[in-house]
Amino acid sequence: MSEQLATEISQRAAKAARAVATLSEEQKNSVLKKMANAIRQHKNTILQVNKQDLEAGKEKGLSDAMMDRLQLDDDRIEGMATAIEEIIELQDPVGERYLVEERPNGLKIEKMRIPLGVIAMIYEARPNVTADAGALCFKSGNAVILRCGREAIESSKAIAVALHEALEESGLPKDVITVVPTPDRDLMKELLQQKDYIDLVIPRGGEGLIHYVSDNSKIPVIQHYKGVCHLYVDKDADLDKALAILINGKTQRTGVCNALEALLVHSDVADDFLPRAAKALAEKNVTVHAAKDSIKFFDGADEIAVEDFGEEYLALEIAVRTVTDFDQAVEHIQQFGSGHTEVIITENDKTAEQFIREVDSAVTMANASSRFSDGGQLGLGAEIGISTSKLHAYGPMGLQALTTEKFVVTGNGQTRD
Amino acid sequence: MSEQLATEISQRAAKAARAVATLSEEQKNSVLKKMANAIRQHKNTILQVNKQDLEAGKEKGLSDAMMDRLQLDDDRIEGMATAIEEIIELQDPVGERYLVEERPNGLKIEKMRIPLGVIAMIYEARPNVTADAGALCFKSGNAVILRCGREAIESSKAIAVALHEALEESGLPKDVITVVPTPDRDLMKELLQQKDYIDLVIPRGGEGLIHYVSDNSKIPVIQHYKGVCHLYVDKDADLDKALAILINGKTQRTGVCNALEALLVHSDVADDFLPRAAKALAEKNVTVHAAKDSIKFFDGADEIAVEDFGEEYLALEIAVRTVTDFDQAVEHIQQFGSGHTEVIITENDKTAEQFIREVDSAVTMANASSRFSDGGQLGLGAEIGISTSKLHAYGPMGLQALTTEKFVVTGNGQTRD
Repeated sequence: MSEQLATEISQRAAKAARAVATLSEEQKNSVLKKMANAIRQHKNTILQVNKQDLEAGKEKGLSDAMMDRLQLDDDRIEGMATAIEEIIELQDPVGERYLVEERPNGLKIEKMRIPLGVIAMIYEARPNVTADAGALCFKSGNAVILRCGREAIESSKAIAVALHEALEESGLPKDVITVVPTPDRDLMKELLQQKDYIDLVIPRGGEGLIHYVSDNSKIPVIQHYKGVCHLYVDKDADLDKALAILINGKTQRTGVCNALEALLVHSDVADDFLPRAAKALAEKNVTVHAAKDSIKFFDGADEIAVEDFGEEYLALEIAVRTVTDFDQAVEHIQQFGSGHTEVIITENDKTAEQFIREVDSAVTMANASSRFSDGGQLGLGAEIGISTSKLHAYGPMGLQALTTEKFVVTGNGQTRD
Repeated sequence: MSEQLATEISQRAAKAARAVATLSEEQKNSVLKKMANAIRQHKNTILQVNKQDLEAGKEKGLSDAMMDRLQLDDDRIEGMATAIEEIIELQDPVGERYLVEERPNGLKIEKMRIPLGVIAMIYEARPNVTADAGALCFKSGNAVILRCGREAIESSKAIAVALHEALEESGLPKDVITVVPTPDRDLMKELLQQKDYIDLVIPRGGEGLIHYVSDNSKIPVIQHYKGVCHLYVDKDADLDKALAILINGKTQRTGVCNALEALLVHSDVADDFLPRAAKALAEKNVTVHAAKDSIKFFDGADEIAVEDFGEEYLALEIAVRTVTDFDQAVEHIQQFGSGHTEVIITENDKTAEQFIREVDSAVTMANASSRFSDGGQLGLGAEIGISTSKLHAYGPMGLQALTTEKFVVTGNGQTRD
């Protein structure tokens, strides 16, 4: 049953993908405009259905955070519509074309950007992902299969009704955006086998979900397990900048993957910097886990063994140690970093450059807060996900990450000798 | 046992990858020069060991084609050395860097090209892949794990001894290039689980091997099952060009994935073109499988049902049908093509452009032979593989496909509001 349904959904999406792949940017923008308006027009229905999801969530005893993610209101509905309108403003990467080379035999070799085909998004309780991901995949010429968690499924379906209205008004098949009808794990598992029809899977949610999807998928999966971001304060750091970036990275928002989780301080500046850091962190109620070398600077800190670094706290907690030199900092980051975002504070351009070259991380920063590591802040516009594995995309993914390039060869009758 | 060995090999490769990731192009080229020379110096040993592989192969009754792939001689050894020297000439993509945007807050956002890390190549009986893939992965700053089939394993190990000599002379760890010590399937299966250490798997060989690797890998796999390439002769085709390209694509070499396997002819030109095609194909002893609509043009052809198209003959055989219009041709290709290479012959630029936009294939061509669809002919230099799935790379893969891009963010103390 599940297998047949999964195949049917995927085949229909693959067929619909062909219909959107060759739409012009103008055509796509006009549909997006209709989608934004349809969301607004369906506001009352969406809110009503969302109320049912909320009531069911309450009965099931969902956490406050989960309930907050699930909840829609007038502002959030308007936010969804506005987000779609912002996607209209983003440049469509599909069709971008550049000359690679004219060959000696006269062949013109070009590359041309094309959609991936069918994207499957797997997410949990956020109904707005339905509109966001639907619109981003559409703008990049892809069909999308949205598999939303049990908690938000009715809200997602109500949002899909609005999006479908816009598609059908434009003469496009509804299958361009599919909300999977049930949140059964069996059906999800079968969808993950549809490698003939689905090109990419993007899971968004907790580590458990991402592991489950990676372990069960025959389709390539964008992996983003966690963000363990380090701040390395170099011996040539401007300590005022270091302090501001430490506090911003750790406390401006804590439950996010680009928050700082560890501080490494060059021993030459530890005596100057760590007392200031201790004071500022204490003022913000940050719990410090300090290595033996730096515990003396922190009142009431836990001692933490170096091998216990690498924790993603997602809370007002941070691990701290000193390092004897640059190489030790880089080595620590290679061992405990998660490939998400790593930051150095230094006024020495050579050291900054060396850090940027040597540290293997999707986003490598000098003298800026790790909190800038997201699609919007990096200028990508909306973000569909973040990849911390290197295949296809590395780091925050915008529209371009939903496309690929093909070769275009133009000749006038050439044959090969 | 296998699990432990696989983990050990992979961990050592991952460590070695860090040592090559930051080498300059000059440093890498100097090591490559040493590798080429070492191959020449080790010629006698390599040939001696290869003789043993050949004898074992003969006893096992390997096919002539397999024995040919396995066999080395003076010329082939020199060919391996020269191939490495040609890789020296290729531009190193690692470190390429471009400005994405200066943000309003002063942050400079760049992208920078970096190696993938560790590549695993899985191949069968061609010992020269050991040198080729070793050198290509090295030039792109990656470590490589080479898992070669039972037939060629001793020859591969002898080649690796030469490569290791060059690495060690240059102060680099041998683990930069590892030939897996045994061809056990168990060990291969365990290697395919090492997603924490290996970044990409490239299988090269028959469809069976590629399916096995895809089905058993937890690491992303470059997929290239087959090449079912079509030639579509449009109503506005120059029929002389069409004929030359048909014969070149089908007969210049048959056992390759960029050979033509099917011919589609617009019905407006069928009466002119198909008799000429029939004559030329007959002269080259090509067996024709013709659909009902075109069988009258071919003496002694099999009739083939349309649903039986899509065969990869890899021989002097071709399937032929007529189509009533452009859309039917594109539809046929979408249904039966393999995403490898598709060709249109037309003098109408608009039709050519429409074909290029609508046909979903890694290489889309107008008025040129499908046989040009390889890394060398497309100007990539050496080719490490071909991808017919769209993630990460689509089509022939050169050095750049062994790299990815990271974000580089440079600020002067910016924090996020």
